[in-house]
Amino acid sequence: MDGRDQIRVVLVRPLYGGNIGSVCRGMMNFGFSRLVLVAPREGWDQDEARKYALGTVSILEQRTEAATLDEAVADCVAVTGTTARRGLYRSQAAAPRDWAPEFLARADLGPAALVFGPEDKGLTTDELARCTHQVMIPTSEAYPSMNLSHAVNLLLYELSTAAGGFDLPGEPSPEATVELRERMFAAWEETLRDIGFFGDDKARHMMLGLRRILTRGRLTENDVKILMGIARQAQWAGRREPGSI
Amino acid sequence: MDGRDQIRVVLVRPLYGGNIGSVCRGMMNFGFSRLVLVAPREGWDQDEARKYALGTVSILEQRTEAATLDEAVADCVAVTGTTARRGLYRSQAAAPRDWAPEFLARADLGPAALVFGPEDKGLTTDELARCTHQVMIPTSEAYPSMNLSHAVNLLLYELSTAAGGFDLPGEPSPEATVELRERMFAAWEETLRDIGFFGDDKARHMMLGLRRILTRGRLTENDVKILMGIARQAQWAGRREPGSI
Repeated sequence: MDGRDQIRVVLVRPLYGGNIGSVCRGMMNFGFSRLVLVAPREGWDQDEARKYALGTVSILEQRTEAATLDEAVADCVAVTGTTARRGLYRSQAAAPRDWAPEFLARADLGPAALVFGPEDKGLTTDELARCTHQVMIPTSEAYPSMNLSHAVNLLLYELSTAAGGFDLPGEPSPEATVELRERMFAAWEETLRDIGFFGDDKARHMMLGLRRILTRGRLTENDVKILMGIARQAQWAGRREPGSI
Repeated sequence: MDGRDQIRVVLVRPLYGGNIGSVCRGMMNFGFSRLVLVAPREGWDQDEARKYALGTVSILEQRTEAATLDEAVADCVAVTGTTARRGLYRSQAAAPRDWAPEFLARADLGPAALVFGPEDKGLTTDELARCTHQVMIPTSEAYPSMNLSHAVNLLLYELSTAAGGFDLPGEPSPEATVELRERMFAAWEETLRDIGFFGDDKARHMMLGLRRILTRGRLTENDVKILMGIARQAQWAGRREPGSI
């Protein structure tokens, strides 16, 4: 595994169970499992948290709780604070994409924490001052305030991507070579003459149009086989005796 | 403005008002405003949607509704379908970071849609086949299923970032030059000799240590002024008559 193992998500004075549950879900999506709640609101809705956590209740159940932020991060070698507000002591906040590789590298050296403030007010200036890193998600100035679990989710996505992410399935067929493409265009030209779509006068112009359409994007070997198959079949259908299909 | 103006968020058969409201919030955070609901579940909770939309109820109120996906995207020049599942017809799905600049460029040519399926099942294979682009957020195979509003939020963040995003406040003080740093180190060396922290024997070694500590990260002109001020003040305090402060 990578630095993700060392990273805990710390929610400071969270208010709503639904957000806490949604945070668990985002953590599981991106391969994180350590949740710490610092002084959550008295009587926060644990049933709602379970409902929103869906299949990730294990993260909720294995959380730890701490009375203060200092206690929650005492053993950490790096602590990132999050802020949505602009201000004098928040000016060194990095954008998520610049921050993620640096923070991940730090987490290789020891435990690290990613800290979020309460839904309504965020972290205090004193709390931010205790952090070794600050990150700010660039949102619209007209509406900068993000939902807590959206913010957590987005930063964990950035860390996961910086860590190499998870593999996407990928295109199973290799990209077609020029040689293969040329065989396909030759088959189409022959067919389009055979079925009377064009004669010598229009052939060059129309084939350029067809080339332009079919080389605009990626084209795999499988794609070429399908296109070649259509050309051959049309040629066959055009040559058959009338009524013989 | 940029391609964001042309992009609508289309939710197909959404189930939960809370998710619909959270989607509005994410849209506003990243500068999007056009929401389309396709056949939302009968009796979906509009009060809950308003609650989760918080200050972005205007997006909810100005939404349009359509009976089918085809109707919702009929006038679009590009349509991105989202999928969490791996499978035969989903193998060409791109990662969000690769997809965003391409889709944004298409949205410059005309209306474009970003389409999400229902919370429980996602888009059908037929619905995905109607899309010009497919995108898949790379999540853990152990738990690939994302919350709907998390998924919307993350892709809008990628589009916003690809579009140039919003400006972060930035470090207000310029990075310190070598000349300024050297003046600071000279001041510290003088002070540390004056106050008896080191003599000639240890000076070189300790100054190398101090240089290492203070050049490890960025250092702005303001930072250097603070450090230089400390050195000067310590020197002054060390030279004063005993008891004279």
